Amino acid sequence: MSKPSGSLSRDGWQWTPQTGLKAGVPTVGVIQPPSTAVNGTVYDVAIIGAGYTGITAARDLTTAGHKTLLIEARDRIGGRSWSSNIEGYPYEMGGTWVHWAQPFIWRELFRYNLLGTNLEVSPTEQGTCAILNKDKPTVTMSRQEEDEVVESAMKKMVNVDGKYGREAIPYPHDALRNRAAVAIYDKMSMADRFKQIEHDLTPTEKLMLEAFMSITCGAKWEEASFFEILRWWALANYTYTDFMERGLRFKLACGQSGLQRCIFDEAKATGNLAHSFSTPVASVNDKGSVVEVTGRDGHVFRAKRLICTIPLNVLHTVHFTPALLPLKKQASLEGHCNQVVKVHIEVDRPEHRELGAYNYPNGKLTYAFGDGTTPAGNTHLVAFGSSLPGVHLQPEENINETIEAWKGLLPNTDTKDFKRIVFHNWHKDEFAKGAWEWLKPNQVSKYLDALREKQGNVWFGSADWAMGWRGFLDGGIEDGQRVAKEVADDLSGKAPRPAFLSKL
Amino acid sequence: MSKPSGSLSRDGWQWTPQTGLKAGVPTVGVIQPPSTAVNGTVYDVAIIGAGYTGITAARDLTTAGHKTLLIEARDRIGGRSWSSNIEGYPYEMGGTWVHWAQPFIWRELFRYNLLGTNLEVSPTEQGTCAILNKDKPTVTMSRQEEDEVVESAMKKMVNVDGKYGREAIPYPHDALRNRAAVAIYDKMSMADRFKQIEHDLTPTEKLMLEAFMSITCGAKWEEASFFEILRWWALANYTYTDFMERGLRFKLACGQSGLQRCIFDEAKATGNLAHSFSTPVASVNDKGSVVEVTGRDGHVFRAKRLICTIPLNVLHTVHFTPALLPLKKQASLEGHCNQVVKVHIEVDRPEHRELGAYNYPNGKLTYAFGDGTTPAGNTHLVAFGSSLPGVHLQPEENINETIEAWKGLLPNTDTKDFKRIVFHNWHKDEFAKGAWEWLKPNQVSKYLDALREKQGNVWFGSADWAMGWRGFLDGGIEDGQRVAKEVADDLSGKAPRPAFLSKL
Repeated sequence: MSKPSGSLSRDGWQWTPQTGLKAGVPTVGVIQPPSTAVNGTVYDVAIIGAGYTGITAARDLTTAGHKTLLIEARDRIGGRSWSSNIEGYPYEMGGTWVHWAQPFIWRELFRYNLLGTNLEVSPTEQGTCAILNKDKPTVTMSRQEEDEVVESAMKKMVNVDGKYGREAIPYPHDALRNRAAVAIYDKMSMADRFKQIEHDLTPTEKLMLEAFMSITCGAKWEEASFFEILRWWALANYTYTDFMERGLRFKLACGQSGLQRCIFDEAKATGNLAHSFSTPVASVNDKGSVVEVTGRDGHVFRAKRLICTIPLNVLHTVHFTPALLPLKKQASLEGHCNQVVKVHIEVDRPEHRELGAYNYPNGKLTYAFGDGTTPAGNTHLVAFGSSLPGVHLQPEENINETIEAWKGLLPNTDTKDFKRIVFHNWHKDEFAKGAWEWLKPNQVSKYLDALREKQGNVWFGSADWAMGWRGFLDGGIEDGQRVAKEVADDLSGKAPRPAFLSKL
Repeated sequence: MSKPSGSLSRDGWQWTPQTGLKAGVPTVGVIQPPSTAVNGTVYDVAIIGAGYTGITAARDLTTAGHKTLLIEARDRIGGRSWSSNIEGYPYEMGGTWVHWAQPFIWRELFRYNLLGTNLEVSPTEQGTCAILNKDKPTVTMSRQEEDEVVESAMKKMVNVDGKYGREAIPYPHDALRNRAAVAIYDKMSMADRFKQIEHDLTPTEKLMLEAFMSITCGAKWEEASFFEILRWWALANYTYTDFMERGLRFKLACGQSGLQRCIFDEAKATGNLAHSFSTPVASVNDKGSVVEVTGRDGHVFRAKRLICTIPLNVLHTVHFTPALLPLKKQASLEGHCNQVVKVHIEVDRPEHRELGAYNYPNGKLTYAFGDGTTPAGNTHLVAFGSSLPGVHLQPEENINETIEAWKGLLPNTDTKDFKRIVFHNWHKDEFAKGAWEWLKPNQVSKYLDALREKQGNVWFGSADWAMGWRGFLDGGIEDGQRVAKEVADDLSGKAPRPAFLSKL
């Protein structure tokens, strides 16, 4: 395995006993020099945002010969998915897991020959799961027992049609196909559904389902659409085993930033890509013959077409002329609900590699598991924390509180064995304002179509409004290739498909 | 839905009571004019073969700006997968079914906006299954009962490890990862495995498993590697329901030729594609600075690089200088074993839409099901026939025998209700010499790596040696994009991925 190091990004935080808490971690996702944009150039296409959507679109457009400018607020590619490379080891700061049932990212991994042993197992199937609660004795079970409990509970949750959601969402990548079901389940919050099944859950099922779901939707259950978990479940082949395997099992030894660099570097090598990092955008003005993008620093970029990949929760902060479609603006002002917390730890306890742990409802980190072994031979665990009032951790505000939150998940572990803590606070990140997309009740029905609409010369792409694995890495790539193809067809005046298929 | 008609191809056969048997059927896959190749041009890349592998490579290379020449023996694109458009209705002459678990074709369907209602259900889940045998009374069961029997039998067949193949092939798209398992199961024929489990099968399970497997591998069980069905099963998520859904449930209203035209037309629209149809290739000569491809008519084409997508069973008929690697040549001379027969019928019996039928072992068509409803409101059924000695149907040689074979599957149906029969005889097709790939015992271990190797300026791509869905539409696209990327990287002198990943 390679030992990439990368440059220091402003993003992320790292704590060690020796250094204390420090802002910024190294990643191969930092691009040097920060800008190659040429003043006065009118590009074919400008792209705002260098997450998966933006870099996929940039790669597709530049390899097709279009002069493209990539504008990014941060100093790195990757958006809500990037890996910090610390001593050659990737900690995934955001989106992490991949699977061959995710067609768009799988195709990218294949394209760059990043499969084989680069595909690594994250949580183990064997080992022990501990359920911790300050008010009660710790319960210990095997990972298999854990799976049985959570599976039983989840099946009760998704079984809205006696067929575990197969009738509600018969086509997982076309989840709106059954509009009648969308209307019913998108109106419901996770809390509404919980009330319907609560009586049928054992106390352990209830606790573990609540713990797991609170960090899946990353919000109060009242704020999260029930439809979204039905859709995840459908995409995961309507079974618990596949749900876990597709959502939470395989990660990349090269890190997400490794794959992202392959995409970015392919675009760069065409000679058709310019970029401007550390360039937050203030406004977009579609003048008809040209679109002007103005940075907060007043710098103006020009292009014939624009692809905007600004996340849902941030879109409203940019000023658009003509104005954003009212439904787009409203959706962005409401925002999706996911404010989940993710924190990594390196611990000098090799046996924790096979550990799973819940600390719910009191823990500020709620759910953890062994995620890998570091070059030093220590265990790397990852934890998620819910954003419920009173427990919403801001890990950099008081690192001792973060250490305490980890102790709540690893009670028999001495703090001196804590070697490193790494995280990115997505909640406080002004360019994300949250974690992966989880829409609120009624938002799918009300906003999804509008969010995907183009306006004049401006296309909008994001994992936040993808059709299949919305909110996943795969969804970002899906929507990136969609908007790139639409823009390329528009630039060339080509019909998107042959005339004989025009009636489709 | 659109009503494409297309031009008449030389390929395929059609019979109606009015016209009798006629060679050639219409398809949108016929390309006019047949040649746009320019004498004396040295193309960047020449591609032999316009099946999925060839057109995918052509699209990827031309959109990336490479001057590409596509050379095809037939008068149409599609290779072993094409749809005849008869009165606006597609009969799939070869590869048919698609699924979102097939990442490469799913990405293409998404790219051309060919999902939604273009994705149609082929066999129904409800209805009746008839098991016919001239020597015994007909047995009738529901489709659910059919599924239960076949599932039970298949699970016995694939359960080599007590985990239904999960230990043998833990990574379905990287089936060689567990080389120890490959060594064991690739040595075994389907017959070897059958002997191990025979005692454990009920008579009905035995009959239905034999019937189904004989048309899955398309060969005598002694000739078919057991590893290949284990791989199919792994790709199908190790379950029977997924096996049927991924292999045999969803097809395209626009026909495979519809998708193929989208890919071809995108390549064409770049202005970088020339083509030469009806041009069987006699020889390939890699002279170092240029590769010469000589047609059977003596015409010589020149390119800097060559992608050869000639199927395994045909590769040895072309003369290569320098010679093909010995293992490549030997693999081609041996060939894969699949010589399955596929025949469509249009019947004026709407109720047959929900029919499944087996006629084994005596039938020359062994297994059939309702596949659609034609514009006339008739049922379209598709049947497969085994290639076992004594029952190997050559459907055009004696059309009455073919009609009789259908009567063996539809015994209560009057021949006057037979409105149309459509088929392509892949066995006698000199450019295919068989159906989808099914390797013989030991061939995976012995030949697969060699088949994927490039030689000098010549790359070899085919669904026949894809890594994931080998033998499927998806595998053809997978390998097409692989060779296109490798050739593009080679032409540009670019490293296939960033330096920091070089050790991967």
